[in-house]
Amino acid sequence: MHPQGAPPQKISLPTIKQVVAVASGKGGVGKSTVASNLALALHALGRRVGLLDADIYGPSVPIMMGIQGTFDPQATDFPLERHGIKLMSMGFLVKPEQAMIWRGPMVHKYLTAMLTQTPWGELDYLVIDLPPGTGDAQLTLTQTVPLSGAVIVTTPQDVSLIDARKGLEMFRQVNVPVLGIVENMSYFLAEGKRYEIFRHGGGKKLAQEAGVPFLGDVPIDPRVAECGDAGVPIVHKYPESDVAKSYLSLAQVVAQEINKTGAPAPLPGLDL
Amino acid sequence: MHPQGAPPQKISLPTIKQVVAVASGKGGVGKSTVASNLALALHALGRRVGLLDADIYGPSVPIMMGIQGTFDPQATDFPLERHGIKLMSMGFLVKPEQAMIWRGPMVHKYLTAMLTQTPWGELDYLVIDLPPGTGDAQLTLTQTVPLSGAVIVTTPQDVSLIDARKGLEMFRQVNVPVLGIVENMSYFLAEGKRYEIFRHGGGKKLAQEAGVPFLGDVPIDPRVAECGDAGVPIVHKYPESDVAKSYLSLAQVVAQEINKTGAPAPLPGLDL
Repeated sequence: MHPQGAPPQKISLPTIKQVVAVASGKGGVGKSTVASNLALALHALGRRVGLLDADIYGPSVPIMMGIQGTFDPQATDFPLERHGIKLMSMGFLVKPEQAMIWRGPMVHKYLTAMLTQTPWGELDYLVIDLPPGTGDAQLTLTQTVPLSGAVIVTTPQDVSLIDARKGLEMFRQVNVPVLGIVENMSYFLAEGKRYEIFRHGGGKKLAQEAGVPFLGDVPIDPRVAECGDAGVPIVHKYPESDVAKSYLSLAQVVAQEINKTGAPAPLPGLDL
Repeated sequence: MHPQGAPPQKISLPTIKQVVAVASGKGGVGKSTVASNLALALHALGRRVGLLDADIYGPSVPIMMGIQGTFDPQATDFPLERHGIKLMSMGFLVKPEQAMIWRGPMVHKYLTAMLTQTPWGELDYLVIDLPPGTGDAQLTLTQTVPLSGAVIVTTPQDVSLIDARKGLEMFRQVNVPVLGIVENMSYFLAEGKRYEIFRHGGGKKLAQEAGVPFLGDVPIDPRVAECGDAGVPIVHKYPESDVAKSYLSLAQVVAQEINKTGAPAPLPGLDL
C-alpha cells in the first residue's frame, strides 16, 4: 500500500542546522513530554533550540511550556519564547475547546506555514513534536521537512510497540534516519520498590530487532504530569531528578547520533 | 472552522440495536482497553456484543483479544469471535509492521466496508473503538454510523483533558449524545498506599463542566497491560479485581444512559 499522488517538495530551512522529529506510532506515550524535555535538555547543553508543535489536532506544547490562551497572529511576534526555547504551536492560534475537525490538505497547509513563516532565526536544533500515528499529517511532514532524523517514543507494552514499529517503517519508507528509540514510562519506584506498571524492556527489544540505537529509558514520576500541567517541564523544574538526568543523557545521545547520520547540513544563510 | 463538503449519508445497521463509540481526544489513554473490557462487561451482563476496531492506523483490538496474524478475507468467516465477542479489525487484514500511510478517503472506504460488509448478526451492542483524536476518520465515522452515543475516555492530567474536551465538542457538532466520561489510570495502589501518577479527578471535573454524566474511574493495575498483551482482557481474566468491577459498573451505567438518550431503535430486520 502506498500513499496516493506524488510526494510534496522539500522546503528549505536555511537558518536551522538540524531538524529532529519526535514521533510515536501511538498517542499518549509521552511524545510531547519527551519533545519538550529533549528541547530543554539540548538547551541545557548550550544549544540554540526551537520547538514546533506539529500535533495540530492535539497540541500539548502550549500547556507543557506554560503558555496559556491564544494570540492574534497580526499583533504577536512568533515564535514565542519560554525557558530559553523558541516555540510555535497551533495551540497559540486556536482555542483548545475548538475541535480541529479538519481534512488533510488544510492540515498540510497550516503545518507548512508554521514551519516556513515563523522567523526562527539561527537554531542548532528544531525539535518537531509530530502528531502520533502514521497518517496524512505525519506522511506529509516527513516528506516536506528536511529532517535530520527521528526519535521514536514508545511505552513498554506490546500494544504500544506494534505501533512504534509502524512509525519506524514509515520513516524508512521516506528515507528519514531513525536516531533511535526511547522507552518512556519504563518503571515506577515507590518506597524503594520497583513497579513495572506498563511492563518493561520492550523499547530495547524493538531497537535491537530493528537495528536502530536504543536511546534509553525514562522512569515514571508523578512530578512529570504535575510539571507538564504546570507549564515547567521536569528538566527545568527538577534538574536533579532521575527523569531529568535521563533527558540530559538522551540529548547527548541524540546529538551524537545526528552527527553519525551524515545528514547534509543545509546551506548557511548569507548575512552580508 | 467547519469540515469541507457535505456530510456523508448515514448507513443502516438493521440487526444491531445500539452502537456505542468509545472515543478519546488523545491516544494512549486506554481507549482500546476500555472498549475491549466494556464489550466483555456488557457480555457478562448477558448481552450480545460485537466490537469493531475502527483504529485503522493503530488497531489494538487483535492483540488485546488474543488474535494473532492476518487472515485471507476470501477464506475467513468474519466477524471472528473471542471470549464471546464478535470482532472485526483492520489488524485482521494487514500486518502490524505495515505502516498504514493512507490518505483520508481510503480510510473512510475501508471503515464503511468493515461496518456494512461484516455479517454481525443480531447484536444488542456494537462497541466501536474509534481512532483517537478529532480528525478525518473520526469525523467521517460519527457522520456515517448511526451512533446511539459515545463514551469518552480520558486520563486525569490537563494535557489529556484538553483533548477530551475537543472530543466532546466534536460529538456535539455532529449531534451524537455523549453518554459520559470515564477517567482511566485514575490512581495506583501499591502496598496499600495510593499514588496519583497522572494526577486525579480531572475526568469528573470535565464531566461537570460539560454537563455530561461522569461514568466512573478505573484504577491503574499492572495486570491491565499484562492482560492486554496476553489477549485476555482483565474483565475476563480477573473478574474479581477492582478494575474488572469498575468495568462491570461502567457497562451498567452505559446501558442506563443509552436508554435515557432516547436514540431511535433501528428498524428490525425481517426474517420471514
